[in-house]
Amino acid sequence: MKLNCDLGESYGSWQMGLDADVMPHIDMANIACGFHAGDADVMAGTLALAKQHGVAIGAHPSYPDLQGFGRRSMALSHSEIVNCLRYQIAALDGMALSAGVTLSYVKPHGALYNDMMAKPAVFAAVLDAVAGFYKPLKLMILATARQQEFATLAKAQGVALLFEAFADRRYTDEGTLTPRSQTGAVLHGDDMLAQVRQLVKHGSVTTASGKQLALNADTLCVHGDNQAAIAQVQQIRALLA
Amino acid sequence: MKLNCDLGESYGSWQMGLDADVMPHIDMANIACGFHAGDADVMAGTLALAKQHGVAIGAHPSYPDLQGFGRRSMALSHSEIVNCLRYQIAALDGMALSAGVTLSYVKPHGALYNDMMAKPAVFAAVLDAVAGFYKPLKLMILATARQQEFATLAKAQGVALLFEAFADRRYTDEGTLTPRSQTGAVLHGDDMLAQVRQLVKHGSVTTASGKQLALNADTLCVHGDNQAAIAQVQQIRALLA
Amino acid sequence: MKLNCDLGESYGSWQMGLDADVMPHIDMANIACGFHAGDADVMAGTLALAKQHGVAIGAHPSYPDLQGFGRRSMALSHSEIVNCLRYQIAALDGMALSAGVTLSYVKPHGALYNDMMAKPAVFAAVLDAVAGFYKPLKLMILATARQQEFATLAKAQGVALLFEAFADRRYTDEGTLTPRSQTGAVLHGDDMLAQVRQLVKHGSVTTASGKQLALNADTLCVHGDNQAAIAQVQQIRALLA
Amino acid sequence: MKLNCDLGESYGSWQMGLDADVMPHIDMANIACGFHAGDADVMAGTLALAKQHGVAIGAHPSYPDLQGFGRRSMALSHSEIVNCLRYQIAALDGMALSAGVTLSYVKPHGALYNDMMAKPAVFAAVLDAVAGFYKPLKLMILATARQQEFATLAKAQGVALLFEAFADRRYTDEGTLTPRSQTGAVLHGDDMLAQVRQLVKHGSVTTASGKQLALNADTLCVHGDNQAAIAQVQQIRALLA
Repeated sequence: MKLNCDLGESYGSWQMGLDADVMPHIDMANIACGFHAGDADVMAGTLALAKQHGVAIGAHPSYPDLQGFGRRSMALSHSEIVNCLRYQIAALDGMALSAGVTLSYVKPHGALYNDMMAKPAVFAAVLDAVAGFYKPLKLMILATARQQEFATLAKAQGVALLFEAFADRRYTDEGTLTPRSQTGAVLHGDDMLAQVRQLVKHGSVTTASGKQLALNADTLCVHGDNQAAIAQVQQIRALLA
Repeated sequence: MKLNCDLGESYGSWQMGLDADVMPHIDMANIACGFHAGDADVMAGTLALAKQHGVAIGAHPSYPDLQGFGRRSMALSHSEIVNCLRYQIAALDGMALSAGVTLSYVKPHGALYNDMMAKPAVFAAVLDAVAGFYKPLKLMILATARQQEFATLAKAQGVALLFEAFADRRYTDEGTLTPRSQTGAVLHGDDMLAQVRQLVKHGSVTTASGKQLALNADTLCVHGDNQAAIAQVQQIRALLA
Repeated sequence: MKLNCDLGESYGSWQMGLDADVMPHIDMANIACGFHAGDADVMAGTLALAKQHGVAIGAHPSYPDLQGFGRRSMALSHSEIVNCLRYQIAALDGMALSAGVTLSYVKPHGALYNDMMAKPAVFAAVLDAVAGFYKPLKLMILATARQQEFATLAKAQGVALLFEAFADRRYTDEGTLTPRSQTGAVLHGDDMLAQVRQLVKHGSVTTASGKQLALNADTLCVHGDNQAAIAQVQQIRALLA
Repeated sequence: MKLNCDLGESYGSWQMGLDADVMPHIDMANIACGFHAGDADVMAGTLALAKQHGVAIGAHPSYPDLQGFGRRSMALSHSEIVNCLRYQIAALDGMALSAGVTLSYVKPHGALYNDMMAKPAVFAAVLDAVAGFYKPLKLMILATARQQEFATLAKAQGVALLFEAFADRRYTDEGTLTPRSQTGAVLHGDDMLAQVRQLVKHGSVTTASGKQLALNADTLCVHGDNQAAIAQVQQIRALLA
């Protein structure tokens, strides 16, 4: 079970995230590509840090919305999504190669990630963007109860999927994340570690209603926002060792 | 003697240049990369057009200044220039490969082009950006009386240069372009064709003062802004045939 | 019946619209405020042109989406819409006052305009933005069969509305515009002039199905995109004289 | 002697500066206007905070360079500077009025501030921007040995100046700030307080070479970047009480 983390989300003079602290503990770095965060200087620095720690590199492209940090859904057409993603992925890919590392996957960010999971037309556009990229890249999406549907669509386009699960989020019976606005949506301490253990050993989670839900996750999403998050990553890492 | 042209300079809903009209007549397309013009959709369309006509593709990166169209000098540091160029070149490179064509050179745009020719520190940063790109790309700069200096610097970094001359601009005795603000700076009709003929046959131009100046140009810069420019390109093309 | 027109939609080096040609024939100029088009230089020029022709000035604010020309819906929160509009309106207002003219109304642009008509939450935010601006401004919206509902909401906030109708668009029985994708959606020549005549004399339009629909419009939206549009404006102007 | 501070420099999801901590201790808030920092939401929040503490409000406009935080000089023309400043000042002015507070001055930011002090053409453009604004605003510039020259130019345009001095920066004999790259450029603790005392009591500073230099400052620039800076502001405030 690999640990992945969104990072490279500083921009210009603004710092965000403890990238140097979390990088030693993760396997996969989802690096912002300039459209919601991460200018070219930040990208270069993040790539160097990932290289130093031997961490796999993924593109973390977004809707073009710096002020909204890519968290606001935007009504882009199919070809706008395709080109907007190809541009961002290509920018990171060429910078990575120039830094001596290799891009291996794509994980859409924020509202684009949510839209991809909720709207078939958006998922189709994301698939097109990745399938038509000049070299094979995996696509990371959310592991839900509907994994198979997504896998079938991706296979038809020749795209390999990576399914991610969340260590610290309670799942609904439908296999989606309980909205953060609801009580108990976020797991802490032993509850979080128990969920990780269940995911790793049994390929399942216990939902908010107590149901056992099968989730075949390839990777766990962890966070590097602050020292508490780093400590959590270290606990998960210790558990997985 | 190849003809190169700046294009792909539309942006969003704004059209600029008669790209479809000029593309059949040129050999090398300098394609904007999103920082002064040319969003991802425009880039995809321009790459398809270049492919259709078998035109070689170059990246035309700029300072990050959409409103100023990259024509305003900006005081970027060495590493900011390097990363800003790598990002733009990489974005076009990956989109080009995905469109089935290959990027072969870089021509900086506007104020960055002028600064590169005038300021050694800027030229050094541009060279670094190209030299460290993951694959060999040529760098197109202005052919001047100081060609050899630039060639020596580029060679030390392992970068091959392409020198461009202007068909329609009168040269000074120093081998730079007469500023557009001066009378006679722009050549038309027979004067322009005479300069092309001299460049091709004798590797020289006749300067504003009447002096013969050696210029070893690999390529001529032509324009596709309007129908008059297209007609001019066709005249030059006929002359070179 | 006043004629209003969207203009000031050039940006940087990109020209859009024949502003100087259409300005003499209109009563109200909806001026872009920099978020979908119209940088500060364009705004200053457009204000000077409006002043020269004694045309009333309205702010034409948008979602923050330059590449999409404000035509892509964005999921902004209530306060984000309020602040985003206040900023744009204020920028134009202060520039107008400095140019010796007075801003009198607001007409949202593109996707924001459509969202405002379709989604009560967006209309509420737009109303808040205008109602809380430091001085009274009218709000221009689409005249539909549901005019009264909008008028009631606006009145509760102390905002005066201006209803606009389209000379050249066929209306549905519900009093909305027939989508451009449908045959007959756009009226030309005599059909357009007949609709203007009916709007002015009878306060109604004949819908696609032949029904008479009451529309109390304060202003007609006309276009200045090209010479054909300018000719149309002149025909309408002659009819109204 | 008033204390002024640059703030409102967060942007979107990125936080910068301890605005809520420093605001109670200052007299004048220089608020970013969206071009180097400070989007419309941040501006609205900063205006509310300034209102709560009865702090005077100034516009802190910049070159249009978000990634560079306005710290990179840009070659804007006279009219580009004028319009770019008017737009930013107007945006803050209208938002301030809508929040029930009044804008009273302008302090250019970063590279624009430095260029204004170093290049007469830039200072002339800044003066034009302020002089032609629809209402009187003061212009804050650096107090140097050449104060009188600037005052004469400003008076000719009818603009009142505010001169600021730095509590924590060592001055050169020419009355400019010792570059941060040099040892001893930044004053701490008692040295800083001694400089404040001298500025207030004697209207002078002791330069790096030990010379007494007359500086008639209206205001001291302080910082709210971190807790150490806040503590410094409180020391200065106590000294001035």
